Amino acid sequence: MANEAVSPCKVVLAGTVAKGLLAEVKAGLEGLNGRQPHLQGILANNDAAAKVYADWTQKTCEENGVKYTLASVEKDQVEEAIINANQDNSVDGIIIYYPIHNNRQDQYLQECVSLSKDVEGLTHKYIFNMYQNIRFLDEQQLRKSILPCTPLAVIKILEYLHIYNTILPYGNRLFGHTICVVNRSEVVGRPLAALLANDGATVYSVDVTGVQKFTRGEGLRKRKHEVEEMPGKGLKDVAGLCDVVITGVPGEKYKFDVSLLREGAVCINFSSEKNFPPEVKQRASIYVPAIGKVTIAVLLRNLLRITQNRMLQEDGNSTSGDKQKSIPNGVVDKILDP
Amino acid sequence: MANEAVSPCKVVLAGTVAKGLLAEVKAGLEGLNGRQPHLQGILANNDAAAKVYADWTQKTCEENGVKYTLASVEKDQVEEAIINANQDNSVDGIIIYYPIHNNRQDQYLQECVSLSKDVEGLTHKYIFNMYQNIRFLDEQQLRKSILPCTPLAVIKILEYLHIYNTILPYGNRLFGHTICVVNRSEVVGRPLAALLANDGATVYSVDVTGVQKFTRGEGLRKRKHEVEEMPGKGLKDVAGLCDVVITGVPGEKYKFDVSLLREGAVCINFSSEKNFPPEVKQRASIYVPAIGKVTIAVLLRNLLRITQNRMLQEDGNSTSGDKQKSIPNGVVDKILDP
Repeated sequence: MANEAVSPCKVVLAGTVAKGLLAEVKAGLEGLNGRQPHLQGILANNDAAAKVYADWTQKTCEENGVKYTLASVEKDQVEEAIINANQDNSVDGIIIYYPIHNNRQDQYLQECVSLSKDVEGLTHKYIFNMYQNIRFLDEQQLRKSILPCTPLAVIKILEYLHIYNTILPYGNRLFGHTICVVNRSEVVGRPLAALLANDGATVYSVDVTGVQKFTRGEGLRKRKHEVEEMPGKGLKDVAGLCDVVITGVPGEKYKFDVSLLREGAVCINFSSEKNFPPEVKQRASIYVPAIGKVTIAVLLRNLLRITQNRMLQEDGNSTSGDKQKSIPNGVVDKILDP
Repeated sequence: MANEAVSPCKVVLAGTVAKGLLAEVKAGLEGLNGRQPHLQGILANNDAAAKVYADWTQKTCEENGVKYTLASVEKDQVEEAIINANQDNSVDGIIIYYPIHNNRQDQYLQECVSLSKDVEGLTHKYIFNMYQNIRFLDEQQLRKSILPCTPLAVIKILEYLHIYNTILPYGNRLFGHTICVVNRSEVVGRPLAALLANDGATVYSVDVTGVQKFTRGEGLRKRKHEVEEMPGKGLKDVAGLCDVVITGVPGEKYKFDVSLLREGAVCINFSSEKNFPPEVKQRASIYVPAIGKVTIAVLLRNLLRITQNRMLQEDGNSTSGDKQKSIPNGVVDKILDP
């Protein structure tokens, strides 16, 4: 018998989801034949949030058997620090704590990171593959393309919540879901909408300029998402259609109007601000108030994948076909996990 | 990468779902300390469909280690056959192949079946418990109430398809789903709508007389469903809101208008007629064309539960407290499975 008058909303904390991902990373690390991945951080600002993120990354690396080093440099030394890390064969992955210049120059710096060391999945090739729904770097489909950490963290949360239906084939597991993403930034909102639509969802991407609909077309006929403008439509027109609502609005003043929610919707907030007011629990079936810990776990997962990709690459470059492979066969299966 | 132009609809056959349930039944039978449940069928008509169902039941019993006997009698001997089976201590469960008289007298006969042997879950006490969302027969919550086979078969299919979300607490696992049930018969449609709403769904129950909405109220505040009439509404007004559509319309002429379906809806047909036209696969994410084999598997599952309930009852009636229990402790956990 169900309880009366008690909110039936299940609150899921990021730490719970992160735990499973870190266990998966741990198992992956054990399959690396003793190689310990090395993450190189580059910090060049006095931004408090960046500092917190850097400290948190270091802590999570150390707790999970990943070597971590930090280069604290001046702004005008970041480019050189990246070049050094690209060339240093002992470095597997590079993370830069933004903002540095807090303008387009930051994007220039991001592009300086070697594709084979970009654990954040932010260089153009990875972003291009993500939008195009191209999931591997190579024809043989051994080396998976890297996805940006925050959108991937949201996906891992949706998997944990069983919104991805494993009864459906890989690549279509969100088919039948209608998802609202409030925020269409180039860093998270737009890539997230594209990823979800590529996996089969109907996605309404909402920002102050209006609503766009991301889908793979009727019956998922397209192999990647397409975008349709919805002139004159606003959040109030689409929120009620959605069984999942994901918010990422920076600014503490923004609050999602809970009365727009479909009864029993799944609500996830990836903003560092609390985009949902407490009343969300009166309407949602599941509420995830923050995702930070999952993002860090996904960063380590990306580092593992980058390291595996690098090891496969090393094998490929090796001229001796008989030479013991530096990556054992069993690990390749892990690489192919979604 | 997703395929182009191929329908992404996954067709799930009843046999696949039944297999898992029969394995569960098998494990349960092994926990009965050597007792072999005995199902007694009563057949008194020349109805071809009833004969097929009777043969099918016998075959499934024999394949799964259940003793099956059949009493083939005249219509006016059915009542006596039921009374005999009620009194026969070697009989655990009774199934009557309807129609007998094909009028209200059949309901009278159904009520003649002892509660402790009603594997079909059709006597008033079980039906009452189902509508009232009362899940146990006793205060100690050891003996589960029996659910009618066809509605329960639909629920088992929804569990198999991961529509029941195990992340949510037991009893609320359909929260967030909107389900359309086309058919509101007393035998299947109305009990099914009630069961689904009791488990947290918003259910639109549709028949020729109109639409009723079954829910546990906003935020699942009620402990059982309530029913709201929706005057002036029809299938076309509610179908598009639903992520699951379940049909059970007798009559080969009826076809569900697939253009009303929400993109990616899950479609299940429990009618012996094909209520969905082939185009359903162009819009559905999952399609279950028939459920018969699951219904039989659920019948055996109910027989197992009835037998377990009878064994617990026998323990309770036993005057010797020290006497070896006829049902081992481990089995009680199985009884408590949903």
